[in-house]
Amino acid sequence: MPNRSAEQYVVGVDFGTLSGRAVVVRVSDGEELAVAVADYPHGVMDRRLPSGRALPSDWALQVPADYCAVLSDAVPAALASAGIDPADVIGLATDFTACTMIPVLDDGTPLNEVPSYADRPHAYVKLWKHHSAQAQADRINQLAEQRREPWLPRYGGFISSEWEFAKALEMYEEDRQVYDAMDAWVEAADWIVWQLTGTYQRNACAAGYKGIFQDGEYPSPDYLEALAPGFGRFVRDKLRHDLVALGSRAGSLTDEAATWTGLPAGIAVAAGNVDAHVTAPAAQAVRPGQMVAIMGTSTCHVMSSDRLTEVPGMCGVVDGGIVEGLYGYEAGQSGVGDIFGWFVDTQVPASYADAARRDGVSLHDHLTALAARQEVGEHGLVVLDWHSGNRSVLVDHELSGLVVGLTLATSPEHQYRALLEATAFGTRVIVEAFRDAGVPVEEFIVAGGLLKNVLLMQICSDVLGMPLSVMTSDHGSALGSAIHAAVAAGAYPDVAGASDAMGRRQVAAYQPDARRSKRYDEMFVDYLEVHDHFGRDSQLMRRLRGRRRHALAAAQSVADGDRP
Amino acid sequence: MPNRSAEQYVVGVDFGTLSGRAVVVRVSDGEELAVAVADYPHGVMDRRLPSGRALPSDWALQVPADYCAVLSDAVPAALASAGIDPADVIGLATDFTACTMIPVLDDGTPLNEVPSYADRPHAYVKLWKHHSAQAQADRINQLAEQRREPWLPRYGGFISSEWEFAKALEMYEEDRQVYDAMDAWVEAADWIVWQLTGTYQRNACAAGYKGIFQDGEYPSPDYLEALAPGFGRFVRDKLRHDLVALGSRAGSLTDEAATWTGLPAGIAVAAGNVDAHVTAPAAQAVRPGQMVAIMGTSTCHVMSSDRLTEVPGMCGVVDGGIVEGLYGYEAGQSGVGDIFGWFVDTQVPASYADAARRDGVSLHDHLTALAARQEVGEHGLVVLDWHSGNRSVLVDHELSGLVVGLTLATSPEHQYRALLEATAFGTRVIVEAFRDAGVPVEEFIVAGGLLKNVLLMQICSDVLGMPLSVMTSDHGSALGSAIHAAVAAGAYPDVAGASDAMGRRQVAAYQPDARRSKRYDEMFVDYLEVHDHFGRDSQLMRRLRGRRRHALAAAQSVADGDRP
Repeated sequence: MPNRSAEQYVVGVDFGTLSGRAVVVRVSDGEELAVAVADYPHGVMDRRLPSGRALPSDWALQVPADYCAVLSDAVPAALASAGIDPADVIGLATDFTACTMIPVLDDGTPLNEVPSYADRPHAYVKLWKHHSAQAQADRINQLAEQRREPWLPRYGGFISSEWEFAKALEMYEEDRQVYDAMDAWVEAADWIVWQLTGTYQRNACAAGYKGIFQDGEYPSPDYLEALAPGFGRFVRDKLRHDLVALGSRAGSLTDEAATWTGLPAGIAVAAGNVDAHVTAPAAQAVRPGQMVAIMGTSTCHVMSSDRLTEVPGMCGVVDGGIVEGLYGYEAGQSGVGDIFGWFVDTQVPASYADAARRDGVSLHDHLTALAARQEVGEHGLVVLDWHSGNRSVLVDHELSGLVVGLTLATSPEHQYRALLEATAFGTRVIVEAFRDAGVPVEEFIVAGGLLKNVLLMQICSDVLGMPLSVMTSDHGSALGSAIHAAVAAGAYPDVAGASDAMGRRQVAAYQPDARRSKRYDEMFVDYLEVHDHFGRDSQLMRRLRGRRRHALAAAQSVADGDRP
Repeated sequence: MPNRSAEQYVVGVDFGTLSGRAVVVRVSDGEELAVAVADYPHGVMDRRLPSGRALPSDWALQVPADYCAVLSDAVPAALASAGIDPADVIGLATDFTACTMIPVLDDGTPLNEVPSYADRPHAYVKLWKHHSAQAQADRINQLAEQRREPWLPRYGGFISSEWEFAKALEMYEEDRQVYDAMDAWVEAADWIVWQLTGTYQRNACAAGYKGIFQDGEYPSPDYLEALAPGFGRFVRDKLRHDLVALGSRAGSLTDEAATWTGLPAGIAVAAGNVDAHVTAPAAQAVRPGQMVAIMGTSTCHVMSSDRLTEVPGMCGVVDGGIVEGLYGYEAGQSGVGDIFGWFVDTQVPASYADAARRDGVSLHDHLTALAARQEVGEHGLVVLDWHSGNRSVLVDHELSGLVVGLTLATSPEHQYRALLEATAFGTRVIVEAFRDAGVPVEEFIVAGGLLKNVLLMQICSDVLGMPLSVMTSDHGSALGSAIHAAVAAGAYPDVAGASDAMGRRQVAAYQPDARRSKRYDEMFVDYLEVHDHFGRDSQLMRRLRGRRRHALAAAQSVADGDRP
């Protein structure tokens, strides 16, 4: 229980795709006192290494030192802004994008910091949205299905190319020297805790969802050897087997890390966590049947249940994957906010940008306002928002985006609304998959940056035909980390209790409109037609991605002078 | 034969979608001495009547008086600019978009000029791209197929919603008063000749291609009555039966028309003609196996042959439809240049417009230059350019545009190139349909405004895998009309002879590149997959158009206060 005589505080740090964010939170009631954000100096490297070396398409790398800069910049800034005595901070917790993998030496040194590997793409962090290992993922899935590996159904039947085995196999096959030099293949979520505590602890959440750790075991050496000769030793050589439960104390803040952060040495540091999953307690959604959709760059859906079942196309189910004692389910949509961003940046003419500027609003807000005036179905479009592939329920990053129904009357606001609807339809496919598998969604709660788009929220409610609850914190993941920090520090007995006290949500903030819901039911039939045609029946999208890679490689080889 | 002692001249006038163009041409060698263009004051009315009355979606109307203004503005301007003595002009000929229909009184007065009908949409010219009669076209086709009407195969199995029977039936069913008030349903191509000569002559080209006139007959009263009760009298009441052959003298210029045009009264006026078909002699392409593609707002393909056969999905085959004595075949693509225009206007961000401005080029040229740098297939896209439906070989204006293969790396220049390729693939489908039906294309000749896009031309050559000839006149249709004027005036014995002397083309101006052609052969397989799926197997695009119309009508009825 919180000490009521003197307030105590915790710090949650959320490591996102482009920046890290530290929030100072009061332990007694979850009040967010201050926030500070630090951008990663290298951002996402998807075209070139820092050396200038070009990257193939679909790559997405980061630099680990950028994460440390968040600890030394954002944490002290948030503390200063909160105006509290750092001595009153009793715990620190972090959460991270996942699966984001770092190849390191025994002491945790990232391989890209070893000078001889600084120009090797495989020596860098492979960010969650590094999407070039689909060929490896395909082989992982085909072999597992053929051998009936028991873990495959726990992942909806598909291991993603985003996850650690596909990314490791890609490295093994494309740069054996870097692979051999790597002592451990570490989730960034655990690497950052390692930097804070001085010891490497593997968190149960990431190991379960991204690392194929089920019922106490990784995939067998036999299976891995069959996948690629010599890869049978991968688990033994490169992965850690002992896990730490969510909400546990991973260790204590080292003196060195105390210097970076301005926090007291020795305070509790919680087990690492994944940004989506850690948001559930922030949204007071850790009980069975509460699904939280964290809608931002991409969308993650997480839900706890007391039932263990197999949902086709889900990302995974992990015992204790969200909170200890329940099965944690995860699903997701590969691209959401980043697709809206791409649309606004590359597909909207100057006249719209000018109008937005005149009105003093963002181009997103301008398009949203125009889109809000449309009748349901007026745009005559169906969109598949698979620009970065499809995570659930198709689990295929070789899929791509589609627009059908274009006419000379089609405007940017038509397409923008159709993109918003594509997100909602994709969410409905996921919700229906959970329902059909016997783990129905009883409350749908939205968190994440896209909360602020009220049209998108209303469309989601109308398309799902159910009320939408919303998280009322602006810093969901970081607040969730703060809740975990409070538990790790012993201020609450468990995450559920801390969530009740420190989390926040507004129940049924949006209600579906019956007339619009009916129209969307009809449009959902159209959506499913193209979803199933391109997602299941046709191989066209895969061929297109392959052709693009082939053409780019040919262009590169001409540029490199391979031809006379 | 031309009088060689004193040069003689002819005037060709081409009535396009947005403007009319007059060209003064020397009879002896086809030299184009001067051109003048007059825009139609009302342009294309696709949203509102001049009164402000809103139009439903897919409508496209015009005002006949705008055509007369071309005669009184552009013809005198061209004559003045040519610096010739108008007394040396021996003939005048015109060509028109088609099927563009005008409802008129017995004396030729357009119904929209009758005050009581000025606010009635059906009283206006229905432009070729008026696309709202698809439901009528569907019934025309279904009934004709069921009754095995002998004329249906002459149109590739489909009568288009763009043509005169579908447009008339739409009027009959939607505004009976206007229909009843109409004494004749006249092609604009013939109406303008009527204004020039004072008599109504129906040209064989438009009657055959657009008016279902085959082997001396229109569809039977029985058939028409079965289509809609009372419509059985349509042909008898509203259409003219006697036709005038292409190249014939339709009459002589009246005194009144001489005043408008500044030309000598009494000179020869040639039979009306369709803009695409009249281009063939300008491109020296009136011999069997020479296909001319007139690429502009849309694309028409015309080819003469000594064989009569049935090409599935062609627009039509008409005896003497291009030149007397040969069967004239027509096919087409519903949207081309207008889709590129739509893309540039609505889908390209400010940074591209700024870069084009800096370089002093049009946005089209800027995107074309960027697109030219791409390897074949690099964009990873397939596009269906059916934004205005598909004329050949699917003949369905309820189809719509599609883009598949989008990723976050997709740029405007990727999409632009994919649009150019879509045009080329659509052309290949047509060329292959003719080949498969036993009337192979032996020379492919391009005319029209898109000639100037050399990337598009090269892509067409690569995709077709054959050389491309190009017409070297900038005023193809108007030059074709001038050739017809010369024949009507007796300066040449026939159109073929006049075409040899006055037409102009460059043979094999583009050669296909073997490597690119091979890649395009692969991509054509992908194109055909989506072409056949959405064009033949799936009803999705039709449902989307219907949903759009339904939603717009609902929005309109709310706006009109139909609801409380």
